[in-house]
Amino acid sequence: MLARESEMRLPNPMSSVPAFNPLIEQISPPPVPSVQAWARAYDGAKGPLIDLSQAVPGYPPHPKMLHLLGEAASSRASIGYGPIEGDGILREAYATHVSEVYGASLASGHVHITSGCNQAFICAIMAVAGAGDTVLMTNPYYFNHQTTLAMLGIATKLVECRAENGFLPTAADIEAQIGSGVKALALVSPNNPTGAVYPPALLAEIAELCRSRGVWLILDETYRDFLATEGAPPHALFSRPDWESSIVSLYSFSKSFCIPGHRLGAITAGPAFIAQVAKVMDNLQICAPRAGQAAVATALPLLADWREENRQEILRRAKALSDVMHSVSDWKLDALGAYFAFVRHPFEGVGSAEVAEALAKKAGVSCIPGSYFGSGQEQYLRFAFANADVDGLTMLGQRLSSFTL
Amino acid sequence: MLARESEMRLPNPMSSVPAFNPLIEQISPPPVPSVQAWARAYDGAKGPLIDLSQAVPGYPPHPKMLHLLGEAASSRASIGYGPIEGDGILREAYATHVSEVYGASLASGHVHITSGCNQAFICAIMAVAGAGDTVLMTNPYYFNHQTTLAMLGIATKLVECRAENGFLPTAADIEAQIGSGVKALALVSPNNPTGAVYPPALLAEIAELCRSRGVWLILDETYRDFLATEGAPPHALFSRPDWESSIVSLYSFSKSFCIPGHRLGAITAGPAFIAQVAKVMDNLQICAPRAGQAAVATALPLLADWREENRQEILRRAKALSDVMHSVSDWKLDALGAYFAFVRHPFEGVGSAEVAEALAKKAGVSCIPGSYFGSGQEQYLRFAFANADVDGLTMLGQRLSSFTL
Ligand SMILES: Cc1ncc(COP(=O)(O)O)c(C=O)c1O
Ligand SMILES: Cc1ncc(COP(=O)(O)O)c(C=O)c1O
Repeated sequence: MLARESEMRLPNPMSSVPAFNPLIEQISPPPVPSVQAWARAYDGAKGPLIDLSQAVPGYPPHPKMLHLLGEAASSRASIGYGPIEGDGILREAYATHVSEVYGASLASGHVHITSGCNQAFICAIMAVAGAGDTVLMTNPYYFNHQTTLAMLGIATKLVECRAENGFLPTAADIEAQIGSGVKALALVSPNNPTGAVYPPALLAEIAELCRSRGVWLILDETYRDFLATEGAPPHALFSRPDWESSIVSLYSFSKSFCIPGHRLGAITAGPAFIAQVAKVMDNLQICAPRAGQAAVATALPLLADWREENRQEILRRAKALSDVMHSVSDWKLDALGAYFAFVRHPFEGVGSAEVAEALAKKAGVSCIPGSYFGSGQEQYLRFAFANADVDGLTMLGQRLSSFTL
Repeated sequence: MLARESEMRLPNPMSSVPAFNPLIEQISPPPVPSVQAWARAYDGAKGPLIDLSQAVPGYPPHPKMLHLLGEAASSRASIGYGPIEGDGILREAYATHVSEVYGASLASGHVHITSGCNQAFICAIMAVAGAGDTVLMTNPYYFNHQTTLAMLGIATKLVECRAENGFLPTAADIEAQIGSGVKALALVSPNNPTGAVYPPALLAEIAELCRSRGVWLILDETYRDFLATEGAPPHALFSRPDWESSIVSLYSFSKSFCIPGHRLGAITAGPAFIAQVAKVMDNLQICAPRAGQAAVATALPLLADWREENRQEILRRAKALSDVMHSVSDWKLDALGAYFAFVRHPFEGVGSAEVAEALAKKAGVSCIPGSYFGSGQEQYLRFAFANADVDGLTMLGQRLSSFTL
């Protein structure tokens, strides 16, 4: 009896159960679905749900966009595998577009099309770092950047972004964290979650630092089209003579064109970088879906005015949020940016997830807890104000003022 | 002078150039574009190009498929982010479909939709293995499996598939390679590049071995719909009581529906495995493109007869290739399977890339060198005969007979 029991307990080296990769197992399930579940539990008592959770604009795509998508998807031209780097027509249209946006001279060879900006990020990271390397991020960070690095076994070091400094890092703070094994610095501007916009001069200073220390600067510019300053280039990094060997910019067509379901993004980098990304991309999914590429290539110049109108609409939403928050005395708008606001809730010592859950279920205001974006963010909630219209935002004052835990 | 020179040579620890990830740098550029370049260099002297290079069927999608794609892509229902695991409508339609194909009882919770089968593979691999682990593959292998593992820093061990054994591995050969650190065995059936079809009994034996040794069996079934045996299940693995804890099946909608440009594939696995994949997928690209998901959900039952006709057409192509190869005395059809043939060329000692290049440029026959699929394959060329029609394949005899290096 005893013998048999110990036999059963001893692991048999020849017999075991297939296991999961611990790096994946230890990642929490993706956060957005759980936040959506809180919103679904709201009973409507305070009026319609104000959804400030999702980083998507609360308006539909242009009818022409839908028409172009339908046309391209039903065409035989879209059915085959395409070039790994993206269809020439979109790479060229995008190169022309970014050349205008930045006042720089960029060609299609500087562009790699991806299936969205999360994919752009993992492609860019894999091109420069592997398991055991280190990548610098800010705290708070965009959570998929953190989980992407964690699942690849890449270590992260954090640069603190303090409320006093508008949630921007300083070059000195970054420099203090650069040590051996640091391959890249990942930044997001305009920022998710805080909304902070990195001034061109700060980016220039950081770029100089990174290049001199052999660190790639990977800049996620998903929210670039919603800057408050019309026509001013977001930065001058592409005018640096040596930019190709140290700077990578990431972009998403999801937000500006309101087509996240079609999964399209882009990497802008030097041709040598693009060649490395193509090797990653071939394994990740061969090429981005093609119908969307054809449609967006046409829409990029065609819908420029529509995008400009949306930029202005989102500025009006920012203004509406700002006005309303002034009327709510104990909630603080610590940062308000291109797409997001980072809001300090009044419940000292209560976790941000607890506040966000109660706010969704009891007050019908859905937003994302600060703690999802890093440690030490318990006092914050992320409001994706671009997702709500001015009327919705105006109702927010009453909801917050009367809210108790 | 001397001092200054040595100063210039010593690496300055504070100043260096950003570098690439050596794991990515050492991967060769994707092979398909170079093969396509050889074909473009053919001058047409022997008649139209016979393209046996690409693993895509040489016929268009059904007009209804194009219509469904257009409809879904122009719909507002497709524009938002979708569930990470895939849209419920496609997960359910696919679960119903695979339940029929395998005579098993599979539900939507067993299904994760991906952007094609390369993505299904990297998701499945990352769920079970990370840098420093080992995965078993066969030799020859599908090249993206090899490059995917290499770029993740996952070591590979190879199980030889010998021509004498119909390019199938034996369970004993697999067992001999299972050692500590082996997390998974990756197989492809019907096989790319050889065409070999793994008999259900062999797969059962391998599955038993893998489970007992704690090794996941990851089976890429991209070419499942082109089996010669009508209606017979490809295998009985999903009827094993413990399959969810050790078996993963991968599939591509690219080949069967002729829509690779729309990037859709699927993973069939236990719900616990699907939950791990969702975490990977969220970082890789959030969700697969949605218009294609809606269209394929409808097309799956609707185009069953059309897929059956294509299966029969590809069997006719296999027969035409087999007939023609009998007439070419010094070329040997060592394997002929569901989609591919593995052909022994007559130029002993000449590399397969040299033969394939000359064959494309001089004889207008485009195919992929055996060496792209592993070492020791120099004597072989992969013919993707499904890509050519019966007339094209009939011309092949003359082209090969008269070909000299
Ligand atoms: C900063 C940031 N980067 C990337 C993404 C991913 O966008 P995409 O839809 O292009 O994958 C998002 C989406 O919310 C984001 O906020
Ligand atoms: C064995 C195998 N797996 C996966 C794939 C990738 O297919 P998909 O287009 O679904 O990414 C291919 C494509 O040729 C293949 O041959």
